[in-house]
Amino acid sequence: MGCCCKAAVFEEAGKPIEIKEFEIPQTLEEKAILVKVTFATICGSDLHTILGRRKEATPLILGHEIIGTVEKLGSPNLKDGYGNTLKVGDRISWTIMASCGECFYCKIGLPQKCVKLKKYGHTSCNDPAIKSGLVGGYGEYVYILPGTTVFKLSDKLSDEVATPANCALATVVNAVETIGVNKGDVVLVQGAGLLGLNCCALSAAAGAKEIIITDVVDSRLEDARRFGATQTINLKDYQGDDLTKKIKEIAPNGVDVALEFCGRAEAANQAIAVLRTGGRYMIAGMVNPTPLNIDANNITRKYLTIKGIHNYNPKHLGIALKFLEDNQDKYPYRELVGEVFPLDKINEAVEVSKSQKYIRVGIKY
Amino acid sequence: MGCCCKAAVFEEAGKPIEIKEFEIPQTLEEKAILVKVTFATICGSDLHTILGRRKEATPLILGHEIIGTVEKLGSPNLKDGYGNTLKVGDRISWTIMASCGECFYCKIGLPQKCVKLKKYGHTSCNDPAIKSGLVGGYGEYVYILPGTTVFKLSDKLSDEVATPANCALATVVNAVETIGVNKGDVVLVQGAGLLGLNCCALSAAAGAKEIIITDVVDSRLEDARRFGATQTINLKDYQGDDLTKKIKEIAPNGVDVALEFCGRAEAANQAIAVLRTGGRYMIAGMVNPTPLNIDANNITRKYLTIKGIHNYNPKHLGIALKFLEDNQDKYPYRELVGEVFPLDKINEAVEVSKSQKYIRVGIKY
Repeated sequence: MGCCCKAAVFEEAGKPIEIKEFEIPQTLEEKAILVKVTFATICGSDLHTILGRRKEATPLILGHEIIGTVEKLGSPNLKDGYGNTLKVGDRISWTIMASCGECFYCKIGLPQKCVKLKKYGHTSCNDPAIKSGLVGGYGEYVYILPGTTVFKLSDKLSDEVATPANCALATVVNAVETIGVNKGDVVLVQGAGLLGLNCCALSAAAGAKEIIITDVVDSRLEDARRFGATQTINLKDYQGDDLTKKIKEIAPNGVDVALEFCGRAEAANQAIAVLRTGGRYMIAGMVNPTPLNIDANNITRKYLTIKGIHNYNPKHLGIALKFLEDNQDKYPYRELVGEVFPLDKINEAVEVSKSQKYIRVGIKY
Repeated sequence: MGCCCKAAVFEEAGKPIEIKEFEIPQTLEEKAILVKVTFATICGSDLHTILGRRKEATPLILGHEIIGTVEKLGSPNLKDGYGNTLKVGDRISWTIMASCGECFYCKIGLPQKCVKLKKYGHTSCNDPAIKSGLVGGYGEYVYILPGTTVFKLSDKLSDEVATPANCALATVVNAVETIGVNKGDVVLVQGAGLLGLNCCALSAAAGAKEIIITDVVDSRLEDARRFGATQTINLKDYQGDDLTKKIKEIAPNGVDVALEFCGRAEAANQAIAVLRTGGRYMIAGMVNPTPLNIDANNITRKYLTIKGIHNYNPKHLGIALKFLEDNQDKYPYRELVGEVFPLDKINEAVEVSKSQKYIRVGIKY
């Protein structure tokens, strides 16, 4: 461990990301952990920031899908989320956020809505709370803040399988748990990005009878079949009443549960039209302003439950990592990362990621 | 018991309701019950039908808020919803609906959505399933169909207190149970009709810390205070951002739960603006087409739960009647019915009901 390390710093949309030098912190706060990053992946929300569709305070080390090995512990006897004592050299994943543990939201089980929340890859290096600046995955080291939940990774999980779990999979574990997917359910999944693919796999593992997925890209729908979808519908072929009819052919009584991961406003009416009376709808992908025009009469008379979630509670990451251990051979999790780059090729990695050729592009250290 | 009885028959909006003669059924199906009606009240939805705002098949005996005494039992050893054996002469209330008990919805606990549902006061006398025609409360007898849950009434409950329970109170018991009102909650109640008043009382009994109610009629807001509301807001004085600000003064962190009983589309955005992150919203009053314009981003990022309910499960009527026994002196339930008419003055009773001078107008037999 020298005095300095490299990290990729994003300044503004349209400007290449630059590799800069940062000091490696020599002293850690209590309960903080210094991690040597081993792998990171590029998530859709990283691209949104790079493309200027999402505003974040800069300069910013992007990357929140990260794993690494423990280099230094701020306190002895720190435990991971499973209760294991952590030690130097442990290979770990951690929650995308650090929470205070004391505010109202932390106390009601929503630490991702903590009033003092800091998110990895979404917090400027200049944030006064982040002395080291090392708070994103596209850098050689990450300073894990107190209030982050860490999980020791099983040797069975490769870097490529484990890395995206702390964003896309943990969020979908939360979505599926919050809305409920039960044995025998007919499930509608809206959107076949990584969130939707994870939802197919989790629904299949939960014993869903039918898993219908909609998207506009055939290759993504094919991926979805391998992740457990039983029926795929390309929205270029079916819209409005035709789509309702198509889904009702598969599910004459309507679907039991629908989960939205596509961010499109029209998805809400599509779901409400095909949900059965007493059905459940999870809105997890509408992270930008999305005006809906829905008829409340359907909510009342159809006895619907509509829920939103955003990010996840630490327990969901623990469940996600165990799910991967048990299911990485049933679904093509080993193929998520299509190409891998070193950190100093970050701009090339971003270009390949933008092409949507792969589900994920990796940065290997 | 003679061969004939009288009932008030509605034909169409604008035409007076006419008293007609019906045969009293001499033989009953198994599990049916013949009831001599003792009291009925006029609900808002009866007025909607009378005024032509709600379409029902006619000819129709209106009235679903009804109580009466058992005249004849279709089977021996019939039990009420509490498990009591029913006998001739028992004073009873019953669910607004008869359900088959065998369909998908009956089996998942939504018998009010039964595929063969028949509702008292909403089903034409000419419906082939109703041989006697006696299926509404504004008549001397009601033929209680098999699949209806009946409850023996406590002597402690007067006719005026007990009669509206099987509509407005049981529905609100369902709404409060479904969305959850917990000790210490800050509750927003939208609409101070009988549903909203009941919601104040149930929330107060559940230990809510603050119960804020909105309406446009001062006298209804005053009633709400007596039913447990701690804060009243007239929407003529506060709208849009002013309303949000006013509610946030009372609940700086936002309200934990909001319940809609007003049927106004703008109520949804009012609620979403003041709900805290992780808050819960019950939409119970939007029984007619009500286009909403809401931002789904608030559902996702604010982690909201939105639920609709319509009518209730029989257990909710059982809870409602017990609640009245325990709470009729804490809240002004004895004052719900402001004026009482005999059946042959039904058109006068409707006129007084339309004036909204009283919460309920009664028909006494």
